[in-house]
Amino acid sequence: MTEKIGRAARAAASPGTEIVARNPATGPDSIEGYFDEAFSVPGLLREIAADPGADAYVIACFDDTGLEAARCAAAAPVIGIGEAAFHMASLLAHKFGVVTTLPRSIPAIENNLVRYGLSSRCARVRAADIPVLALERGEPATLARLEAEIFRSIEQDDAEAIVLGCAGMADLAGSLAERFGLPVLDGVACAVKLAEGLAGLGLRTSKLRAYATPAAKAYMRG
Amino acid sequence: MTEKIGRAARAAASPGTEIVARNPATGPDSIEGYFDEAFSVPGLLREIAADPGADAYVIACFDDTGLEAARCAAAAPVIGIGEAAFHMASLLAHKFGVVTTLPRSIPAIENNLVRYGLSSRCARVRAADIPVLALERGEPATLARLEAEIFRSIEQDDAEAIVLGCAGMADLAGSLAERFGLPVLDGVACAVKLAEGLAGLGLRTSKLRAYATPAAKAYMRG
Amino acid sequence: MTEKIGRAARAAASPGTEIVARNPATGPDSIEGYFDEAFSVPGLLREIAADPGADAYVIACFDDTGLEAARCAAAAPVIGIGEAAFHMASLLAHKFGVVTTLPRSIPAIENNLVRYGLSSRCARVRAADIPVLALERGEPATLARLEAEIFRSIEQDDAEAIVLGCAGMADLAGSLAERFGLPVLDGVACAVKLAEGLAGLGLRTSKLRAYATPAAKAYMRG
Amino acid sequence: MTEKIGRAARAAASPGTEIVARNPATGPDSIEGYFDEAFSVPGLLREIAADPGADAYVIACFDDTGLEAARCAAAAPVIGIGEAAFHMASLLAHKFGVVTTLPRSIPAIENNLVRYGLSSRCARVRAADIPVLALERGEPATLARLEAEIFRSIEQDDAEAIVLGCAGMADLAGSLAERFGLPVLDGVACAVKLAEGLAGLGLRTSKLRAYATPAAKAYMRG
Amino acid sequence: MTEKIGRAARAAASPGTEIVARNPATGPDSIEGYFDEAFSVPGLLREIAADPGADAYVIACFDDTGLEAARCAAAAPVIGIGEAAFHMASLLAHKFGVVTTLPRSIPAIENNLVRYGLSSRCARVRAADIPVLALERGEPATLARLEAEIFRSIEQDDAEAIVLGCAGMADLAGSLAERFGLPVLDGVACAVKLAEGLAGLGLRTSKLRAYATPAAKAYMRG
Amino acid sequence: MTEKIGRAARAAASPGTEIVARNPATGPDSIEGYFDEAFSVPGLLREIAADPGADAYVIACFDDTGLEAARCAAAAPVIGIGEAAFHMASLLAHKFGVVTTLPRSIPAIENNLVRYGLSSRCARVRAADIPVLALERGEPATLARLEAEIFRSIEQDDAEAIVLGCAGMADLAGSLAERFGLPVLDGVACAVKLAEGLAGLGLRTSKLRAYATPAAKAYMRG
Repeated sequence: MTEKIGRAARAAASPGTEIVARNPATGPDSIEGYFDEAFSVPGLLREIAADPGADAYVIACFDDTGLEAARCAAAAPVIGIGEAAFHMASLLAHKFGVVTTLPRSIPAIENNLVRYGLSSRCARVRAADIPVLALERGEPATLARLEAEIFRSIEQDDAEAIVLGCAGMADLAGSLAERFGLPVLDGVACAVKLAEGLAGLGLRTSKLRAYATPAAKAYMRG
Repeated sequence: MTEKIGRAARAAASPGTEIVARNPATGPDSIEGYFDEAFSVPGLLREIAADPGADAYVIACFDDTGLEAARCAAAAPVIGIGEAAFHMASLLAHKFGVVTTLPRSIPAIENNLVRYGLSSRCARVRAADIPVLALERGEPATLARLEAEIFRSIEQDDAEAIVLGCAGMADLAGSLAERFGLPVLDGVACAVKLAEGLAGLGLRTSKLRAYATPAAKAYMRG
Repeated sequence: MTEKIGRAARAAASPGTEIVARNPATGPDSIEGYFDEAFSVPGLLREIAADPGADAYVIACFDDTGLEAARCAAAAPVIGIGEAAFHMASLLAHKFGVVTTLPRSIPAIENNLVRYGLSSRCARVRAADIPVLALERGEPATLARLEAEIFRSIEQDDAEAIVLGCAGMADLAGSLAERFGLPVLDGVACAVKLAEGLAGLGLRTSKLRAYATPAAKAYMRG
Repeated sequence: MTEKIGRAARAAASPGTEIVARNPATGPDSIEGYFDEAFSVPGLLREIAADPGADAYVIACFDDTGLEAARCAAAAPVIGIGEAAFHMASLLAHKFGVVTTLPRSIPAIENNLVRYGLSSRCARVRAADIPVLALERGEPATLARLEAEIFRSIEQDDAEAIVLGCAGMADLAGSLAERFGLPVLDGVACAVKLAEGLAGLGLRTSKLRAYATPAAKAYMRG
Repeated sequence: MTEKIGRAARAAASPGTEIVARNPATGPDSIEGYFDEAFSVPGLLREIAADPGADAYVIACFDDTGLEAARCAAAAPVIGIGEAAFHMASLLAHKFGVVTTLPRSIPAIENNLVRYGLSSRCARVRAADIPVLALERGEPATLARLEAEIFRSIEQDDAEAIVLGCAGMADLAGSLAERFGLPVLDGVACAVKLAEGLAGLGLRTSKLRAYATPAAKAYMRG
Repeated sequence: MTEKIGRAARAAASPGTEIVARNPATGPDSIEGYFDEAFSVPGLLREIAADPGADAYVIACFDDTGLEAARCAAAAPVIGIGEAAFHMASLLAHKFGVVTTLPRSIPAIENNLVRYGLSSRCARVRAADIPVLALERGEPATLARLEAEIFRSIEQDDAEAIVLGCAGMADLAGSLAERFGLPVLDGVACAVKLAEGLAGLGLRTSKLRAYATPAAKAYMRG
């Protein structure tokens, strides 16, 4: 999965942008819901601490796991792939639909949309009921379920663009866009572009209140 | 701090309710912002896993750190002291004010209020600019700052009740309520009462979608 | 109906809590919509005036009829069974569904949810199209309608918990929870627990602005 | 007060519109907060029942007391003077300010604005701290307070129009508009015009759900 | 179309009100979406400039095209037929449904509802998929589609009143109201009544901030 | 002004991006409020029609004048500099402040924030009371006013990042960011980066509903 995401990021990157794809040393294999999220954040923050010189960081989990903590930890900008796709889709459509893997992931995505302010731009968050790791095997039935849910998002929810709600769907965006005739956004690609944009302008996370740099913490090592 | 919180919880508890106050073995000494939060959650979830027979769990950090993950982990109800105070205050006043310790904690509290749906009930979240651990030393200057901010919440924001935005303020609620002549809510006490209420009615966290029980996870041990 | 509600309240109450169930001397037999509400409030306020020593008051109409006026009238906390169930359900589920009796009651419940701030937590308010007084006769057809609507709330609205939208459904919560495998909340029980909690902590309604005590009023007698 | 309101209504009415100003036989002398509201509604509904042939009804209390119940009771349209002024002001300004009499009235007005959907159009609800009945005596100090609060609404809240938050201020709208150079709206006049408009178009309250006609009720007589 | 709208306006007007129906000299034949809107506004503003003595102006396009600019341009009140119908419907029903012509018009109407603050009062905006100019030919199939969509608005969205989302539907309001037994609002008639009301009270657009009068502009002539 | 904006865009652009800065042949010299906006849109749409081969279009007016119509007109993505800055700021701060030129521009910016969904992310929109064209002369008093308003945005509104609310402020972003120690965003630069990002990913405006391509229109020539 890490490799696949790295490939998607490199495909989106501009010439001159170097992508380093890392999987935290600790934490779950895939993130399906709040519980997995909680155990993945410390490893994620240690990865950031281990590579403090990056121009920007992308959190390649659609739940934007640990986004706020990472913004505290890093000097450079941090982008979640969920928020990246939501912001980009808002520039292309009146309302976008989100199609994710499992029903249990919907509430976290809905909460993120509310926190970002973009829930009024989202027609509905849907789940195709596909386990994250099953996406990797690329079975036809998996794709059929995903397409059926995209169809419902367009027909029943009036979505004008589709956001793919899982990093593991990155390689499907192009063919789905062609098939359905509307923008289909993969968060990994969107986040790479936003990261390039912010870094290119020299913009960095505000350290004024929410994301103030924490003092060096002994417990990070544990 | 753990002891102080335990005392506050016991003072609020009904006869027959046993309070077990625990501090996670790993994680920061105090929680001031998103970064500290992130490192405290795994320890918190391990404490819950270590004591699966409790009738209810209270997360005694005003940011409601790890609340959603804990709800996945536990069968019994889980209450955050922040949400507990917000819900209780909503039953006593048209609008309540929140006074917390540090300005950097305000955004997390504001995000929680939006997520819970109760931001329209909160007049404003204010910070008295007091470090969490300084509260324990109980210096007069600390109290004066807190009172000044409560005064502003009532006069400028039209708050009709005050929520104390830190577990370390639990012992001040009574005297502040008397001094200002309005309800002053401590989240620890509120959470104990809500926990007793839910447990007494046999109500448990829904396992249907958001808080579905995760499969047993090897990484929890690490 | 009053007796049935009293029994439900007593079943929920902790040892040591005394429940006094009263039906106002004036007003409609059941409350179905805004018009009935209006005529029930003066009687309700006279009941409170007649028993000023209670530790807390519960308004056992799901519309929370007269809640604000009662908070002005009483020194002790006042809890509506609708708000009680909404707040409790928010602690157990990402989104809850409400199933009430008549379609004409939906708008008042929706308005209450907006006023309390909790409309974002409610998946949808549905009506099973059952007259309030028909609930008392307990016919099988009535139960079947209620169950069908709960099923729709879970399947179509993604509710993770169900709030029963009528005091007359209090005795059904347990069996429905078992049948559907999720929390089913009865407002009477929830309100009793919240009343016990607030009273136990010595918390009382703020008298600062919205609920300031009115001067003694001659017209109350009329 | 009833006479004064009648005069204001007649001054606003078109030729051919007959205004009948009535004060309910029961209920409080003035309405200051939720408690007074509760006792005024049955009398108000009896007045409507006593005059079923009116083309429209105006509830001349700025809290829009009993508005929903009155809509159930009447076949013809019912307009509250608060909502009338809010809707009219929305047609003249990006944001309007409301200046009412007592601080205790602010929460009810805020709740109405939320229910009507127009809270985003209101800059802020302010109180000049004037008892309702003091307005009738017309002392200079009362006017000075009102003007000071209007000034704050314009300067601090960026209001572009002012809604006078009490039927007793009806006669001041013209001179205040001239003094401050912006629209100053009196709810009585606005309600008369909206009532004339709806009646003129033959539009009546929907009886479909929220405002369905109640069955004839024995308790109305009591 | 201009003539038809003029007739509808005259039918709604009170005795003594003179209606002048004008079609801008430049701009599209009908307005279907944002692009047509953009080209119709300069012509609309020139019409207002050409007739500065009107007591009020009505913009007879349901998108309320150019409403804010027209409020800057005119001294007298300006009413859009969309907003007029939304405000009037809010006085008659808990929630209203909107049925417009083309799906591409829905987003602009939704955006207007959000801007006016009334989106919480609208059950849903629906399109009957009828071209604006086809309405004029009055074919039975067109009417059937419109009725089917009204039916869905009532049954599926719980609308209690219907707003017709196109000036070209003005002549159908009466018969549809009779057929469906609920208020059916035509924006032209509503706007005429609101314009009469504001003009009758001497109320004019606030010139304080949003709608401040622009300096005389050479480019208007071009 | 057009040249200045062109320079700012080129400074932000990546190597390989060609910037063509155009000023519409018709329309006002500067845009201050809704009235000027209305007359600038047709010229803007003609510029787009005259250059259909661009990879993306940036509308360099902070009001995002004509954004929706331009999205209908163009096949390639269209970005407004206002929305660009709002979205970028949302990635760097919990809340951002906006400082624009004239008070009369505030309502249009507030309406845009609501439409985009990002009003909850904006602390407050402020005006430094500087005419747009005065910015070009670069007098010290103008800068002092701007700085004073930024200071208030940080101190009184708790903004963590500042969005400069006028294309004419583009050259000040760097020095203000340094002076105040937080991100200061210029919409022109942000829009260039978002346009590069969308074009780089091959993403285009959805043509499904809101922004469907209009038929060729004769009136465009007039």
